[in-house]
Amino acid sequence: MQNKEIRLHSRPSGVPAEENFEFVEGEVPSASDDEVVLKTLYISVDPYLRGRMRDVKSYVPPFQVGQVIESGVVGEVVESKSAAFQPGDVVSGQLGWRLYNVTPAKYLMKTIPGVSATTALGVLGMPGLTAYFGLLDVGKAREGQTVFVSGAAGAVGMTVCQIAKIKGCHVIGTAGSDEKANYLKNELGVDEVLNYKTAGNIFEAIKSSCPNGVDLYFDNVGGTVSDAVMTVLNDRARVVICGQISMYNSTQPDIGMRPQPFILVHSAVMEGFIITQFAPRFAEGVGQLAQWFMSGQLKHAETIAEGFDNTPKAFIGLFSGENLGKQIVKV
Amino acid sequence: MQNKEIRLHSRPSGVPAEENFEFVEGEVPSASDDEVVLKTLYISVDPYLRGRMRDVKSYVPPFQVGQVIESGVVGEVVESKSAAFQPGDVVSGQLGWRLYNVTPAKYLMKTIPGVSATTALGVLGMPGLTAYFGLLDVGKAREGQTVFVSGAAGAVGMTVCQIAKIKGCHVIGTAGSDEKANYLKNELGVDEVLNYKTAGNIFEAIKSSCPNGVDLYFDNVGGTVSDAVMTVLNDRARVVICGQISMYNSTQPDIGMRPQPFILVHSAVMEGFIITQFAPRFAEGVGQLAQWFMSGQLKHAETIAEGFDNTPKAFIGLFSGENLGKQIVKV
Repeated sequence: MQNKEIRLHSRPSGVPAEENFEFVEGEVPSASDDEVVLKTLYISVDPYLRGRMRDVKSYVPPFQVGQVIESGVVGEVVESKSAAFQPGDVVSGQLGWRLYNVTPAKYLMKTIPGVSATTALGVLGMPGLTAYFGLLDVGKAREGQTVFVSGAAGAVGMTVCQIAKIKGCHVIGTAGSDEKANYLKNELGVDEVLNYKTAGNIFEAIKSSCPNGVDLYFDNVGGTVSDAVMTVLNDRARVVICGQISMYNSTQPDIGMRPQPFILVHSAVMEGFIITQFAPRFAEGVGQLAQWFMSGQLKHAETIAEGFDNTPKAFIGLFSGENLGKQIVKV
Repeated sequence: MQNKEIRLHSRPSGVPAEENFEFVEGEVPSASDDEVVLKTLYISVDPYLRGRMRDVKSYVPPFQVGQVIESGVVGEVVESKSAAFQPGDVVSGQLGWRLYNVTPAKYLMKTIPGVSATTALGVLGMPGLTAYFGLLDVGKAREGQTVFVSGAAGAVGMTVCQIAKIKGCHVIGTAGSDEKANYLKNELGVDEVLNYKTAGNIFEAIKSSCPNGVDLYFDNVGGTVSDAVMTVLNDRARVVICGQISMYNSTQPDIGMRPQPFILVHSAVMEGFIITQFAPRFAEGVGQLAQWFMSGQLKHAETIAEGFDNTPKAFIGLFSGENLGKQIVKV
């Protein structure tokens, strides 16, 4: 069988470009013992992958130039030398951007029956778990709190907003278009959404949208929005640093308002996390998310790009906010 | 008896000046039931008082213009209508900058016998407690960690350094003169001290002094030193925001390197605190500090200004780093 994979051709400087990626064709290897061959159905493109394209130490090792890019993938088993999977099974795992992956069966999980397989890359996958543990464990959200979510229309952000509403919080978010803002308000029940591109003075806009201050800030974006939220923190507020997408393509240090004076006067806590630290509790998280999802309390949105060859383009589009909810490539 | 007090005459803009303070003379009132009259012996001047001179909401209410300044004071009881105290008792409390204070006895504590009464304003008082709870409870210092302390030659900083050494940490600090650096290294056993005024590129200096990174950053200062420490944080590092003295006199927002990207990639925690949140545990803290102090494991340094009228000047001197250890005014 003919295979194709997408490698890091060169490290991006600033916003990634298609020329940073290289398509390489080859043969599909056979499965060895305890391995399966997977035909890729869907590929997840995620903002955090940008960090792995830098040559700096981070929580996951950087991609090397010439290495295949890896992210969440849903595939169908076409050959199995593992007792765990049969041809036709639909599974997910962290896999290469390839038409076919050959991988040890132990790294794969079957997708949840009765729901779209793509949810394994979104609301019932890493983005959903990131929202769940980030909001409830890192952020310690409680009923009656005011929760502010930057990047509220992304895969993580919209799940955070909904879980916060389920938990009885007042939820305010930012998004980059009126379409996204309307979706969040009208479809997901977010109390207030600011279009940061048209809100004018973001400090004034956030101040007037948060008359009772902010108890919990779930930050996916960083930058000026975060500067403004710092000025409305309540005492003992918690700031969850989940992402800083506004900074991922920056080639300069992140200069702006230092938050320390606000952290000090409000005895606030700012905490970063990576979802893998919660790995022992993933089953709990997926179970709760699936229950909410199947009961209709938790919705999702997906933006689907068509065609394996459009994977780099879909990834690049994340940084101009082209996606509503989870950005996926359908192969 | 003739009294004198120091009031906030006008709010400082930038570094406080003597003209921001006003001396007002009057009579000493008599004590009512359960009150005592105290003759002031020593006054504590503290950086955090600068925050109270701004007209902004903070963790303690701002001083009003025309109001007497209050801080830690040690005094001798000269008249008592309380069964708790006799004339001649030496006590401490949060009191006005006055020659004589009349105050309810319930807000006062006797100083610890066998040690200088000034320790009630320093190593066995609020600064000592701030170091103790900030390092051990907020910072969760553990044996073998690398602890970085900014403002290491201040009253809080030098206590933090020593407690960290007692707990088996590797300790690196910053100070503003070679004299202070030498004191910290030679007298207190701090492993390494950078004179931030002469260290050249502070990013390079901190990087080379922290080859194993930083597990716990105890920050009294803020600004560029903090920017540089962020670049050497280890995974799961804790950043304790105790003070931001470099910013207290700023009339502009605190612009610099945002720490959020570092908090994110290292799953770090940044936490501010105020010492009053630990009030139920003050007896525990003072007890431990006193034990270390009397056994010689914990030392202190004091800079004593002479004369009540020099209180504003001693306060102003904090911001140019004129003090080694605790700055006190002997009345």
